[in-house]
Amino acid sequence: MGLSPELRIEVQDLMTEYCHVLDDGDLSEWPMLFTEDCFYQLIPRENAEQDLPLATIRCESRGMLMDRVMAIRDTFMFEPRYLRHITSGLRVTAESADVISAQSSYAVFETLPDEYTRVFNVGRYFDEIVRDEGRLRFRRRSCVFDSELVPNSIVYPI
Amino acid sequence: MGLSPELRIEVQDLMTEYCHVLDDGDLSEWPMLFTEDCFYQLIPRENAEQDLPLATIRCESRGMLMDRVMAIRDTFMFEPRYLRHITSGLRVTAESADVISAQSSYAVFETLPDEYTRVFNVGRYFDEIVRDEGRLRFRRRSCVFDSELVPNSIVYPI
Amino acid sequence: MGLSPELRIEVQDLMTEYCHVLDDGDLSEWPMLFTEDCFYQLIPRENAEQDLPLATIRCESRGMLMDRVMAIRDTFMFEPRYLRHITSGLRVTAESADVISAQSSYAVFETLPDEYTRVFNVGRYFDEIVRDEGRLRFRRRSCVFDSELVPNSIVYPI
Repeated sequence: MGLSPELRIEVQDLMTEYCHVLDDGDLSEWPMLFTEDCFYQLIPRENAEQDLPLATIRCESRGMLMDRVMAIRDTFMFEPRYLRHITSGLRVTAESADVISAQSSYAVFETLPDEYTRVFNVGRYFDEIVRDEGRLRFRRRSCVFDSELVPNSIVYPI
Repeated sequence: MGLSPELRIEVQDLMTEYCHVLDDGDLSEWPMLFTEDCFYQLIPRENAEQDLPLATIRCESRGMLMDRVMAIRDTFMFEPRYLRHITSGLRVTAESADVISAQSSYAVFETLPDEYTRVFNVGRYFDEIVRDEGRLRFRRRSCVFDSELVPNSIVYPI
Repeated sequence: MGLSPELRIEVQDLMTEYCHVLDDGDLSEWPMLFTEDCFYQLIPRENAEQDLPLATIRCESRGMLMDRVMAIRDTFMFEPRYLRHITSGLRVTAESADVISAQSSYAVFETLPDEYTRVFNVGRYFDEIVRDEGRLRFRRRSCVFDSELVPNSIVYPI
């Protein structure tokens, strides 16, 4: 609402880049999509709606995101898999001079070796986006997923 | 085709708002996305293609949409679930001075308590959109779904 | 990246048209979305990443795409099914005066008669798009899918 088509495309490009680094790209680029002083969490909808702070993943700085990347690399050597993010419904809910607030829905599919692809996780992103060093970055991304059932395997950011 | 980027975004925003009220928002806002004199149906593709009028849901005014919302609220008290809409492929097929005709594809995922998320319903929206009281609204939304198999539970609009 | 909003919409419209002819439209229009001298392949990610040329489908001209359409029509008389493409994450990775390179992610759902809809195939499109006879067309579309497991039924283009 009020975003120019060009700025909206820039926001969309950030969302796309995010999915790209997780699904096909270099995971070490993932922390660079956040500001240095950032907040990222992956939390069940049940907990988010009851304001329970119990998150599946919770990182409070880019450094913590980098630690997560290292941990994943160790895990994925033993448990290779492919993820595939599909997103839709970008909704810009507020915008100040400095911060763009956005929401969007996502579905992530998982493919394990010698298995058929399955639905892995669906939910909604709640974002605060800022311009930082000349590009858009997430200052905050809260990833709220619909299923209360958490696969053991969910060490990977969504 | 001929829509300005700005108007296209406005159409996209209506689609997004629709998904938002069904998945995360206040369901009572759903009827307000339609004109007062409107048509909404949820119909299997098989029936739509053979011009059979047998629809799973069929509402012929905003009042009937409101009745549906009341019925769902009673039902969902007993059967809580989360829905998640993902859409893509917005296609503007015709446009007059007053009416925008549009199509898009959707996939809806369902999450029941203590179960994994599953594919619930996929299909295609066929829409007629008009400007009404200063905003875009659906004058007609026909929701044609691919599976001939109808879950008992499909009392909810898609 | 440098594409005007209008050109980006034109690229998006080509993607949408592609999904439309496969899911709902006239399959014989599918080859016309490619240039006459074109390349289309459907290949498992495993093979693509190891540079193995073993593709599930491989067509090196519009004529070969037309042959594929004929073959599918014969097959689908016996095995009717509905496909539903959902795409997201359009990413323009390079652009010269003549060629637009693009990537996007897709999920395809399959519905067989008297069965529930299921996830059929997910993956990523790698495209080269050119202007040809006044419209955008694929000069190359490489469709790289995540699951190493190939259903027998995958004679259909994705």
